[in-house]
Amino acid sequence: MENQRTEITSLGEFGLIDHLTKNIELQNASSIVGVGDDGAVIDHFGKQTVISTDMLVEGVHFDLMYTPLRHLGYKSVIVNLSDICAMNATPTQILLSLAFSNRFSLEALDEFYEGVYAACQRYGVDLIGGDTTTSQKGFIISCTAIGEVTPDKFIKRSTANVGDLLCVSGDLGAAFLGLTLLEREKNIFLENPGVQPDLEGEQYIVQRILKPEARKDIIEFLQSQNVTPTAMIDVSDGLSSEILHICKQSDTGCVLYEEKVPITEDTRNAAFKFNMDPTACALSGGEDYELLFTIRPEDYDKIVISEDISVIGYLTEPELGAHIHTKGGNQFPITAQGWNAFK
Amino acid sequence: MENQRTEITSLGEFGLIDHLTKNIELQNASSIVGVGDDGAVIDHFGKQTVISTDMLVEGVHFDLMYTPLRHLGYKSVIVNLSDICAMNATPTQILLSLAFSNRFSLEALDEFYEGVYAACQRYGVDLIGGDTTTSQKGFIISCTAIGEVTPDKFIKRSTANVGDLLCVSGDLGAAFLGLTLLEREKNIFLENPGVQPDLEGEQYIVQRILKPEARKDIIEFLQSQNVTPTAMIDVSDGLSSEILHICKQSDTGCVLYEEKVPITEDTRNAAFKFNMDPTACALSGGEDYELLFTIRPEDYDKIVISEDISVIGYLTEPELGAHIHTKGGNQFPITAQGWNAFK
Repeated sequence: MENQRTEITSLGEFGLIDHLTKNIELQNASSIVGVGDDGAVIDHFGKQTVISTDMLVEGVHFDLMYTPLRHLGYKSVIVNLSDICAMNATPTQILLSLAFSNRFSLEALDEFYEGVYAACQRYGVDLIGGDTTTSQKGFIISCTAIGEVTPDKFIKRSTANVGDLLCVSGDLGAAFLGLTLLEREKNIFLENPGVQPDLEGEQYIVQRILKPEARKDIIEFLQSQNVTPTAMIDVSDGLSSEILHICKQSDTGCVLYEEKVPITEDTRNAAFKFNMDPTACALSGGEDYELLFTIRPEDYDKIVISEDISVIGYLTEPELGAHIHTKGGNQFPITAQGWNAFK
Repeated sequence: MENQRTEITSLGEFGLIDHLTKNIELQNASSIVGVGDDGAVIDHFGKQTVISTDMLVEGVHFDLMYTPLRHLGYKSVIVNLSDICAMNATPTQILLSLAFSNRFSLEALDEFYEGVYAACQRYGVDLIGGDTTTSQKGFIISCTAIGEVTPDKFIKRSTANVGDLLCVSGDLGAAFLGLTLLEREKNIFLENPGVQPDLEGEQYIVQRILKPEARKDIIEFLQSQNVTPTAMIDVSDGLSSEILHICKQSDTGCVLYEEKVPITEDTRNAAFKFNMDPTACALSGGEDYELLFTIRPEDYDKIVISEDISVIGYLTEPELGAHIHTKGGNQFPITAQGWNAFK
């Protein structure tokens, strides 16, 4: 299997599409027409449709030297499903477009699609369309995700209120440290090709960067508790950047407590190894794909029972700005140091 | 204006998005939430949603040496709206993702978006989302278009019947000849940079490749005549390729009459200049973005009043295969020589 290399030119465009989509079985009643026509058709039966799109570019968003194609396929879907969840919607379909150079074999594409289909399976999502073409250089992935939401139950970034509690799911900072570790091991390997990567004991942080999950479970938990967040966003660029989006768009300030920011022991240990501050990794690292949301104070009792949700601060009048209260008792303004693809 | 160059890094990702989207005014009642959140929200009020996506890659699908950015922006939208029309739906929204290298200035992007917004304006479509990022090389455009259709009134490729008439809108072959001309002038220029391109009298074929339109008017005409095509597809890869898609997916054969294939005088003249057969350009050229559709014979009287629709053949039993009857009285099998990005 690993030695086989089938040139994509041997199939042609339509042959390739047939090959990559032949096993699709639509899972959602709303997927009326899938791959194979000019467009796909969906019917959300009285629900509103939520839609989001993301582009991932080799050398900018991922490095194939340490990113298994299966994981890349999985992650390409997840980052889009995470956006749908952040609107309080249930993801139902995706469209996936790829451009790749001729260094890609059919076997490589198959590996990528294994990850895509694994994510679709896990989240109950149908692949209903896309485009495949060549690129002059590099692998480019464009994914569009679609979801459904009960009319007017979607949640924006701009609707939080002063006094609301600031909450985040899961834990933060691990993905950034996983990326830092993989980059370090790559550089060591490039200088000494004989040295094997040392990822011993770092499974958690590596998994967080290579195989993130979308927090559909948090959306379902909140619904089961009858809690409707007042604003929500997913943590892709780092906690600071996302907090500032909510504050700016909702016209509020905020107080964030450093001691409340959820960071696992594995993440802390990795940060110390790299001489980094764990809180800085959580604030500016990004790629955690957790959900940051605000709730009315009276909903506190309903969410406190979840070990997967941390209350990390509250929203204030806009004039007070956005601040972090450190463990040492200091206050600093929160600044966006999120990831910028243009730097 | 032309001398100004603003580096995109000076704005950052969010500044760039704000700049490019600041003048958007949503035109459709179905566009509930547009740009600026994790996802967009649409509500098609009891209609079904049609969705399609396409990727355009510099050096594969377009050449910036002779493609004005404004036209490229326009065309990027049109090719997707054409797919929505080919499903018998009305386009309502688009999402647009771009990856570009740092040789692009803000002024260049603005020019591209001028074309995008011109297409949105003309077709009554809202830009509701997207992604902007950097590429290592070249300009990559991924557009997703959304439309709405009365439940179960969408038209697939697979539902034509034996005996149906084969129809096509507008005229064919011009876009391919326009591309051939632009490629020739480019090569002359590269060899003799002093020579100015000679496009005299070739406005029509050049316009067809650089600034195509989506045949929303044909969809509206058919609806006004109460004609529901039995199958439909847009002509992006060439007439032959699209006919074979309908025949294969509908399990029919077909007879195509060469003399009925609509080709303008301008296109014929250009073909003769290049020593090409005009019919071959129509069959295999592609990028015409006309609509190819089938109708029941009894609907013939309702469409014959349109000068913009040609009846070019009819569907037969599948065993008879797909054939073209030439002006000279010969019959040849139709073969797909449509455009293949992987060659």
